[in-house]
Amino acid sequence: MRSVSILGATGSVGTSTLDLVERRPDDFSVLALTAHRDVAGLAAAAIRTGAKLAVVADDSCLPELRSALAGTSVEAAGGAQAVIDAAALGADWTMASIVGCAGLAPLMAAIATGGTIALANKEALVSAGDVVMSAVQSRGATLLPVDSEHNAIFQCFDFARPERVRRIILTASGGPFRTTSREAMAQVTVAQAVAHPNWSMGAKISVDSATMMNKGLELIEAARLFPVASDQIEIVVHRQSVIHSLVDYVDGSMLAQLGPSDMRVPIAHALAWPDRMATPMPALDLVKLGKLEFEAPDLERFPALRLARQAVDAGGGYPAVLNAANEVAVEAFLDERIGFLEIAAIVEDTMQRLDTPSPTTLDAVLAVDAEARRLTGERVAKGRVEDPVA
Amino acid sequence: MRSVSILGATGSVGTSTLDLVERRPDDFSVLALTAHRDVAGLAAAAIRTGAKLAVVADDSCLPELRSALAGTSVEAAGGAQAVIDAAALGADWTMASIVGCAGLAPLMAAIATGGTIALANKEALVSAGDVVMSAVQSRGATLLPVDSEHNAIFQCFDFARPERVRRIILTASGGPFRTTSREAMAQVTVAQAVAHPNWSMGAKISVDSATMMNKGLELIEAARLFPVASDQIEIVVHRQSVIHSLVDYVDGSMLAQLGPSDMRVPIAHALAWPDRMATPMPALDLVKLGKLEFEAPDLERFPALRLARQAVDAGGGYPAVLNAANEVAVEAFLDERIGFLEIAAIVEDTMQRLDTPSPTTLDAVLAVDAEARRLTGERVAKGRVEDPVA
Repeated sequence: MRSVSILGATGSVGTSTLDLVERRPDDFSVLALTAHRDVAGLAAAAIRTGAKLAVVADDSCLPELRSALAGTSVEAAGGAQAVIDAAALGADWTMASIVGCAGLAPLMAAIATGGTIALANKEALVSAGDVVMSAVQSRGATLLPVDSEHNAIFQCFDFARPERVRRIILTASGGPFRTTSREAMAQVTVAQAVAHPNWSMGAKISVDSATMMNKGLELIEAARLFPVASDQIEIVVHRQSVIHSLVDYVDGSMLAQLGPSDMRVPIAHALAWPDRMATPMPALDLVKLGKLEFEAPDLERFPALRLARQAVDAGGGYPAVLNAANEVAVEAFLDERIGFLEIAAIVEDTMQRLDTPSPTTLDAVLAVDAEARRLTGERVAKGRVEDPVA
Repeated sequence: MRSVSILGATGSVGTSTLDLVERRPDDFSVLALTAHRDVAGLAAAAIRTGAKLAVVADDSCLPELRSALAGTSVEAAGGAQAVIDAAALGADWTMASIVGCAGLAPLMAAIATGGTIALANKEALVSAGDVVMSAVQSRGATLLPVDSEHNAIFQCFDFARPERVRRIILTASGGPFRTTSREAMAQVTVAQAVAHPNWSMGAKISVDSATMMNKGLELIEAARLFPVASDQIEIVVHRQSVIHSLVDYVDGSMLAQLGPSDMRVPIAHALAWPDRMATPMPALDLVKLGKLEFEAPDLERFPALRLARQAVDAGGGYPAVLNAANEVAVEAFLDERIGFLEIAAIVEDTMQRLDTPSPTTLDAVLAVDAEARRLTGERVAKGRVEDPVA
């Protein structure tokens, strides 16, 4: 019986995790669940699972949570510090799925307990990779990636012999504009950018998929998670998104993980690891799929990939700058303040303007993040970038 | 420094093994090399590698071997028993690549030493699977499959948790008649049958690829090698032969091994296992490959697959009967005594006529093998099977 805490229990990763945990009441007991503001979802999940503690990050929602939990044995708490305290309770297994920089401090608290942490928060490894990974090492925590690509690499990577890995091949769906010309991309609307061919996702991540910045961020994450040099990580476009990534070894063998497009597969892997647990997903049917295709990514049409590689190669605060600038630029695009191609152009502009030292603490990371957001916001306010196509 | 013996050193697997061993003189020392009749190839390899012993199975070739090795430190021996004695010397690592039933006794001798044995002999697991696997277990030997499909499964299979494996998916190229109608197959010539689309191989194995009996034999081998039920093993046609096989787990993850069509990849895996060694093969280029395709095998057009499944399900001596009958039928086809479709029809006839007990010793296996060959030979002598298309 393992105790489980889910930080961000009402988001898509959180609810998928709950789905799996609730199918195995004899294997898992729920310690703490946290949510941002979804009191109804949080209270229902806490009551269903018999959680010890439910925490709402926005403490103005605490009274509502208290009444929703009245008469149950679930303890209620509210506020950012209460989320951190919940993470520090020391569950055997913690899902860190709070989106954005808000997830960093709770993640660090969970790492400090030395437990097993399933990581779904991208910012943690992109912006604060050095800080997170050195805490994981010093606290003896175990970090299991649940992003489907990194989970695939984890399943195929021989951690006992990292020097036998020749390359990591990160697969990318290519997004909705895989075959769209740069001229046509300049005219892309918000509605077009948020329609992902393979998954239905939130607006921010859909735009990241459309610019391929999501794959750039994953490149940076992979360089943090796996003991290889960043130039050993290649990106290949694989539109079917069936092979979630591959590891190429020095002997010519390549190992790959394949699976359905359902987050429960990598989450189940992290939940049961090093064992495996049954999931309700039907088996992948290769015959029905028919074919798997591969093509090279186009760095001209998708400059985000080039910027991400520059950021990971430069190291220090550059990945945090890339991530923060991208968030601001994507928000401006979603608000129709800038065009689609300006997203990468503005990120590049911020990267060039901000000369950042290497942040070695969480506070320093947050300071770099804030400064990059401020600079990018200024740039966005100036209006459209001239001729981003050229 | 590991000592290596190669049983069948002058065949394609043997020479590929030598190629790898000779690239790493500091890691491997050669103990014994054996060959059937290729004295020149055997002597040259023994001298190059500084082998302690060279054995020619056909003892009429021993004088020639002696003179080829005169003045060197390589000891010469000849005859079937000398091959078995060489296998019994107890190398740390033995490649068992003698083709056919002649390889069985040397393999058993190598297993008896409790060392690590790389297995390239198909008959061992098809005909004598029970005998071989129980010897492996009782002697504490380690069996590493070097057939590309079984090596792929081995790389993906979690032997610590076989109950977590849902399916093994054995990939098949589909052979030269993948899309040929049964009517057209009835007219197939020997020249057409031995032209394999992906590899250049010997005539027997080319015909097995054309009938898909090779995949049937591999199904039987897989059922011996891996702790799963035979109905957990599926065959999927994958014409590019890049994914060499896959393992599907209960959580929905599927692991696959991919690689170039070069036997040195699986041999290198077996040579270095559990470590890995560099090989001279260029890395697989997924973008250049472009696509990987999958389709269901057609059991109507390829009855060999159905017969192999019947044999593995029936167990006992049936796989040995299947293998022996197939060898006789393929030889008859290559001699133009029977048509292409008659191969499977004749194998099925022998399987139906021969009621065999379960052989529990090597001698009993060889007796079943001999009786199946005799019966099949009788059937072939009767002439063409009537209307095998119907």
